[in-house]
Amino acid sequence: MAKRLAYLGPAGTFTETAALRYDSQAQLLPFFSIAAVAAAVDAGMAEEGVVPIENSLEGSVTDTLDLLIHESRLVIRHELVIPIEHCLLVKPGVAVEEVKVVYSHPQALGQCRRFIERCFPKAQVLAALSTAAAVEEMLQSQHPAAAIAPSRAAELYGAEILARGIQDHPSNTTRFVVLAHQDHSPTGRDKTSLCFSFGEDRPGLLYSVMGEFARRNINLVKVESRPNKESLGRYIFLIDLEGHREDPTVKEALAGVQAEASMVKVLGSYPRYVGQ
Amino acid sequence: MAKRLAYLGPAGTFTETAALRYDSQAQLLPFFSIAAVAAAVDAGMAEEGVVPIENSLEGSVTDTLDLLIHESRLVIRHELVIPIEHCLLVKPGVAVEEVKVVYSHPQALGQCRRFIERCFPKAQVLAALSTAAAVEEMLQSQHPAAAIAPSRAAELYGAEILARGIQDHPSNTTRFVVLAHQDHSPTGRDKTSLCFSFGEDRPGLLYSVMGEFARRNINLVKVESRPNKESLGRYIFLIDLEGHREDPTVKEALAGVQAEASMVKVLGSYPRYVGQ
Repeated sequence: MAKRLAYLGPAGTFTETAALRYDSQAQLLPFFSIAAVAAAVDAGMAEEGVVPIENSLEGSVTDTLDLLIHESRLVIRHELVIPIEHCLLVKPGVAVEEVKVVYSHPQALGQCRRFIERCFPKAQVLAALSTAAAVEEMLQSQHPAAAIAPSRAAELYGAEILARGIQDHPSNTTRFVVLAHQDHSPTGRDKTSLCFSFGEDRPGLLYSVMGEFARRNINLVKVESRPNKESLGRYIFLIDLEGHREDPTVKEALAGVQAEASMVKVLGSYPRYVGQ
Repeated sequence: MAKRLAYLGPAGTFTETAALRYDSQAQLLPFFSIAAVAAAVDAGMAEEGVVPIENSLEGSVTDTLDLLIHESRLVIRHELVIPIEHCLLVKPGVAVEEVKVVYSHPQALGQCRRFIERCFPKAQVLAALSTAAAVEEMLQSQHPAAAIAPSRAAELYGAEILARGIQDHPSNTTRFVVLAHQDHSPTGRDKTSLCFSFGEDRPGLLYSVMGEFARRNINLVKVESRPNKESLGRYIFLIDLEGHREDPTVKEALAGVQAEASMVKVLGSYPRYVGQ
């Protein structure tokens, strides 16, 4: 039986592209929020779930981080990095110079702002709930319209692609993670994500925890802080490091963190993404 | 002549409350985006500008961070912390049991989600562009409606407050900063914000930079990373520390950072907020 793979939908979004890249044989189940994807996996409606965690321009997807930190027992089992290529879609036959309205998700509109200003200075720009919803609204529009969406949405909705790669910034990529009940066994090229916080407010403690890794030559790929949701100025720290939680040096370092932090949660060990 | 103080408007938002708290004599000038507030100060339309930078539940306001890091020559001259108390506003005379529609900004709706589910399980919940816009839409609504907004919006729009402090989380505070061409002179109880990045991708460098502060007993209040907008996995780090950039030990530490980082930008030294 095919694996059931929940993802942040609807079909035609970049998360669907990531899910297909991860497992093209899986049965894909779209859900309409990151929390719903996690709930579906948690309840057994799907074996795994794909959600975005970080974009190279916008930064972290805080809903995913907060879910992993505070709300879910699920862990990260895999990661994928997908280039975000925005395309300009129209109803077949509509020409560029006719376009009066441009639809997309606010984030996609932001990432193509200069393109829109240059090519459609007089068009009305309208926000949609997702890039897929933008395509639907574009197809139903009374006025000649365009939508900014992934190329896959053109296939799904029978739209025509007028332009590709219209984002202002060439290096626009998003990192997705696969959530599951269990993380991945060691492969020799792994990453581990963890979060921790301190009972007392002594910022030297973060430095000391980072020393546990520096001392053992464990590379920290990412350090980030999120509010602990109790008071301003108190944080939960997130670290991504190179290595698997079962590697002896990582194990030692994690024991050191455990001794210093009041809360430690390993969010999963998984194969490091190394391109296609 | 009264100081001209730009702020993220419109009137009736929490940023206006912060601006009034900062300088109740100032001439307040609302602008409709964080970038517009900065542009107004930069161009001399206002001496200073007030924008939110961090909420205890949602985390950093990334627009403000990215503006300070990448786009603006302005610096932080002051900080304020304001408790966020959401109120339920109606047209005078409307009773709770009549309410069919609830309007607010998506962030306020998120922060009052449980209250809405409990008290208005059947109401239609509609997103507005700001809490102030929500009050306008509520007043013009065909159906009996309520809006979630600060108490100040009730004064401004002549609405009635049916409930106060309806946010789900009691400890909801937002930190605002005052942007100006120059930061503040030392007061003895100061904070300094800076950002830095590294030319090469060696995460041990962050640890080494943090050592510059730890070694001199300089307290780091906050450590955060933002994408450098060039490639995933490359970051710009933000640090808030206790002390003024002119304090001898801070000066020494900053020189140490300068020697290790490829880019350092001091975002300002300013009096530490210590309550009303």
